[in-house]
Amino acid sequence: MENFIWYNPTKMYFGKGQVSSLNKELKNYQNILFVYGGGSIKKNGLYDEVRSILKNNNKNYIELSGVEPNPKITSVREGIKLVKEHNIDLLLPVGGGSTIDCAKAIAIGAKYDGDIMDVLNKKALVEEGLPIASVLTLAATGTEMNPRSVITNWEENLKLGIGDWETDATYPKVSICDPTYTLTVPRNQTVNGIVDIMSHTLEQYFTDQEDSVLGDQFAESILKTIIDIGPKLVDDLENYKLRETMMLCGTLAWNGLLRGLLNKGDWSCHAMEHALSALYDIPHGEGLAIVTPIWMEYVSKKRNDKFKKLATNVFNISPKKYTDDELVSEGINAFKAFISKLGAPTSLAHYGITDRKTDELVEKTLLGRQKIGRYIPLASFDVKEIMERVYKLEKELVYSN
Amino acid sequence: MENFIWYNPTKMYFGKGQVSSLNKELKNYQNILFVYGGGSIKKNGLYDEVRSILKNNNKNYIELSGVEPNPKITSVREGIKLVKEHNIDLLLPVGGGSTIDCAKAIAIGAKYDGDIMDVLNKKALVEEGLPIASVLTLAATGTEMNPRSVITNWEENLKLGIGDWETDATYPKVSICDPTYTLTVPRNQTVNGIVDIMSHTLEQYFTDQEDSVLGDQFAESILKTIIDIGPKLVDDLENYKLRETMMLCGTLAWNGLLRGLLNKGDWSCHAMEHALSALYDIPHGEGLAIVTPIWMEYVSKKRNDKFKKLATNVFNISPKKYTDDELVSEGINAFKAFISKLGAPTSLAHYGITDRKTDELVEKTLLGRQKIGRYIPLASFDVKEIMERVYKLEKELVYSN
Repeated sequence: MENFIWYNPTKMYFGKGQVSSLNKELKNYQNILFVYGGGSIKKNGLYDEVRSILKNNNKNYIELSGVEPNPKITSVREGIKLVKEHNIDLLLPVGGGSTIDCAKAIAIGAKYDGDIMDVLNKKALVEEGLPIASVLTLAATGTEMNPRSVITNWEENLKLGIGDWETDATYPKVSICDPTYTLTVPRNQTVNGIVDIMSHTLEQYFTDQEDSVLGDQFAESILKTIIDIGPKLVDDLENYKLRETMMLCGTLAWNGLLRGLLNKGDWSCHAMEHALSALYDIPHGEGLAIVTPIWMEYVSKKRNDKFKKLATNVFNISPKKYTDDELVSEGINAFKAFISKLGAPTSLAHYGITDRKTDELVEKTLLGRQKIGRYIPLASFDVKEIMERVYKLEKELVYSN
Repeated sequence: MENFIWYNPTKMYFGKGQVSSLNKELKNYQNILFVYGGGSIKKNGLYDEVRSILKNNNKNYIELSGVEPNPKITSVREGIKLVKEHNIDLLLPVGGGSTIDCAKAIAIGAKYDGDIMDVLNKKALVEEGLPIASVLTLAATGTEMNPRSVITNWEENLKLGIGDWETDATYPKVSICDPTYTLTVPRNQTVNGIVDIMSHTLEQYFTDQEDSVLGDQFAESILKTIIDIGPKLVDDLENYKLRETMMLCGTLAWNGLLRGLLNKGDWSCHAMEHALSALYDIPHGEGLAIVTPIWMEYVSKKRNDKFKKLATNVFNISPKKYTDDELVSEGINAFKAFISKLGAPTSLAHYGITDRKTDELVEKTLLGRQKIGRYIPLASFDVKEIMERVYKLEKELVYSN
């Protein structure tokens, strides 16, 4: 195995009613920036709950609302301005991953004198951030227990990731994970979350490291669980137990545990999807549902060890019945069938997208790098080929196995 | 699932040569207490390596050597005295779990004005501790990435556990886990470590919580891995890859991950073993090897759901071939066979122990509690029955399946 550092200072409160832990956790802070999105927390009662905790504890707070699903640099800048104006000492994002991601960028922006784009462009390094306490309302990105944040700059159609795994700067100090708040998440957002969690696990499962005994089994445990409960959840959105397990999958898939055990993973599909959604503003989970099967088909022709394990250990396909190539193919088909069972889009035709911007997608995928991915590194011609295959899928398919 | 808090602020550096990270991690400290045990680190070169890092970084350091395998309260008191005399600002335990456990008790004792026994007896609560950076040389207790510490008071023949999972006080701030240092661990200590890791995982696998989907699978992954590689490692002590995987199993088994997902677990076998080794000074892993199969036989007659899963999911025994009772029995036999395959003792006869101190063992197991254990809570008559069965095993058995 490759050497790794495993560090995660986030304190996670998991389960029903855990929002009350804020009473204790806010103790050392006075001026709070309450960050949220489009208002779903006003419908499910969480907004009022958080406000009454803030009031009962005599905290001063300012609201930053309307944070976008793909959070924009403009929201980040607005947050940084509020922090500086109001002497904010704690950020309190309440919502899905985008709200927390926005708070993370604000956290480091608040400690930096220049424009936050310098940090997003890696021109400036900021090693500290304002503390963050988050309340999660969507099982998806894992941001509640990791240091990563993705911010979109629409002026340049770029999605940029920041967040260092080894310093405290952007880990939430506290995260409240109460599955109750996810019971009202609509079907399509639930599906997108499931695909994102599945993708985070797969991105790490597809590692270049061959002796990841425990990492492989942990990843397979998460994958099998998602495959088992994902379709059930989509048909039974208010099922607490399913929501609970999915929320745990979301955190465990991308909180450093698999990353350490699996030598960081591949992440090509995420790079390609970020390009797609930066260009077409499609939801991240949907972009992943479209690009991942095509990546699998392309890459499995070059290296197939993990694809055989995926078929056998995750999809329970007996290797005895098939040749290696057939086994790989059966596994990929089973993955496609899972995507269709969830009801996720399988083609850009879903959005009526017909203009082909292959070169631009390749450029935004690579972002100056020669290659992306660890399982099979992809150069620009590989990405181009995959993107062309994405465009070729001119009809939505329903996969079955 | 029950609500839980998952928190673990330890930064783990895993892999070859990671001891060099101390150069960076010692930066903010000046006066260091270098804690170690019986001198194995002088044989494998680690002592010199650590000393030269301390010297090259111009640190002042004092040595506390000779920490016992079941660390004594007297060593803790000596450490606390040294800390106060020399204005120590960092504890640097280098060795197995006992060395790190000793440092943890020193860490909080240093912040307390009275005698450390007050804290061990839960008469005083100390919520802060001196920072600890540990270098692990034995895969076993998991103490390198958890807040727990077990200290023996021989005056009263008591083994006492301390360490709060929710505050920073006794988590190592940094832990260096380099499997290289475990290559020279002798066979019997290696076996004891493997049994301890297996036991930590089982203690949590046997939870009262019925819907621990992910926790069960993670625990099964660790159990299957130990069963696969444990006997191989015992026959191939210098195999780096096996040492590496076992070290990871040790940390993952008892660093809070399973504890949160599995509602804390049972821990009856540990309570009974602590009584046994406090009374007879036998190694912890050996006591666990003796008591666990007897606990399994006793408890499985009262509740068997998890025993069926153990047989099926961990030992790959097909449930189709057996009645429920047979399946449970086959699983326990497979566990016993694993213990024998490792070459661990299976009876107190191994030590020539013939004096029966059943009542004292029961008292020291319960330590004033009405019951212990969560899977099946055990009252004093249950513990007495199990201890009598332990004494009845007057010959060492070699289990096979």
